[in-house]
Amino acid sequence: MDNNDKPNGPELYRFALGLEYDGSAYNGWQIQDNAPSIQASLNSAISKVADDAVSCVGAGRTDTGVHASGQIVHFDSHARRAPRSWLLGINSNLPDDISVIWVQSVGPDFHARYSATGRTYRYVILNRPVRSALARLRAWWIHQPLDEEGMFVAAKSLIGTHDFSSFRAAGCQSKTPVREMRRFDIRRTREWIVIECEANAFLHHMVRNIVGTLVTIGRGDAAPGWIETLLRARDRTAAGITAPSMGLTLTRVEYPPEFGIRVT
Amino acid sequence: MDNNDKPNGPELYRFALGLEYDGSAYNGWQIQDNAPSIQASLNSAISKVADDAVSCVGAGRTDTGVHASGQIVHFDSHARRAPRSWLLGINSNLPDDISVIWVQSVGPDFHARYSATGRTYRYVILNRPVRSALARLRAWWIHQPLDEEGMFVAAKSLIGTHDFSSFRAAGCQSKTPVREMRRFDIRRTREWIVIECEANAFLHHMVRNIVGTLVTIGRGDAAPGWIETLLRARDRTAAGITAPSMGLTLTRVEYPPEFGIRVT
Repeated sequence: MDNNDKPNGPELYRFALGLEYDGSAYNGWQIQDNAPSIQASLNSAISKVADDAVSCVGAGRTDTGVHASGQIVHFDSHARRAPRSWLLGINSNLPDDISVIWVQSVGPDFHARYSATGRTYRYVILNRPVRSALARLRAWWIHQPLDEEGMFVAAKSLIGTHDFSSFRAAGCQSKTPVREMRRFDIRRTREWIVIECEANAFLHHMVRNIVGTLVTIGRGDAAPGWIETLLRARDRTAAGITAPSMGLTLTRVEYPPEFGIRVT
Repeated sequence: MDNNDKPNGPELYRFALGLEYDGSAYNGWQIQDNAPSIQASLNSAISKVADDAVSCVGAGRTDTGVHASGQIVHFDSHARRAPRSWLLGINSNLPDDISVIWVQSVGPDFHARYSATGRTYRYVILNRPVRSALARLRAWWIHQPLDEEGMFVAAKSLIGTHDFSSFRAAGCQSKTPVREMRRFDIRRTREWIVIECEANAFLHHMVRNIVGTLVTIGRGDAAPGWIETLLRARDRTAAGITAPSMGLTLTRVEYPPEFGIRVT
């Protein structure tokens, strides 16, 4: 306990934190029985520092094998520690494939998930004839040459507010399939194709289903116009394959400026 | 066996290959008893494809935990397979943290180690207050702010032909401590500091000992001129710490053009 720490009281204090993780060894963000999750590891680390059972809430429920460089989480505690005490304490209780980047005090009206107004994901494709040892847990390897121009043309139709039912996983629990896609960038640098997309929120498997469909187009197995047809169809069974999880990273979550959440 | 494969004969054919690996799970390149090595995994994969015991030779004997994106290897075999058959066959017999990038036929005078005229290594430092989950096996995390300008000034003295005894590991078996450093670049991009250096060859632990010394300078614990003093001292005990292995990658090996080795 450092100089800024106060003794625990009856009040609950809310804290937000920025989280980075390598999702390779976890069954996703969400806590569950009999399988390792990011949330369970983080709850356990925070609880040790708080000396009390703490349950945290994450902005994005990433799937098995999906990574994060900018996940945002909040938790409540009676322990009124300084942000730096939380940061050092939680990190020293986390495994080395999960790390807290910052901690800050927030008001009781801040909610990591419900206050979020935007999420950004990055998807990395390695497009070369042979597989990669170094990128095996960070990128989807595709050996056929991809036409990223066609993928880029196709992706333009995704921008705006649409019913994304065709890109929604069967088990998705969202009330509405309508999402606003604000940005969808595709850049190639030699054998790397990096996709960055930002929306108010994403449906379950939405990024991976879109990337799978774009790769089908990039391979030349469908025309760029297929994406528009799929959007209109509002039918998951009409769309392409689901891209594998290891290429996906949650990079940023946005909140209204009044919450004063640090931008990563 | 594809159409280009010929039946095995009494002759030995020599092949060169480009190799990528994540060194995290291995006790370095070199084959040894009772510890996993890249060389042992590669020998085993090549031998399966050759249907005969094959022993390969690598250009650089990387240490435990050191990675490679451009290691070069040669091997001899009576099996006269086409390069593409070797490539696909070896890769399907390698673990997923080792991958062959290309295979080509070479003359009997080519030797991966002795023919090499230059080696390039990259060392990555993550310079930020908190550790990184995603970069934990690819970069040396240093939380104190580093002055990369001072490091850059210091590194200039390394260029040229010098006696590098002060940066040589105790167990180094080279006949001479003299090496020609042809390039030594240090670039910072936000919290990443990337060091790239090229020499005719490197002594054992030479890059890691130089990086450890540069970090001592970057932390402000020694002046940039210390590197010159150390070079003149020719005494390993005078120099700084050894940088950890996970930040280091062998990226390129150079050969005289007459060998026609593919440039990676």
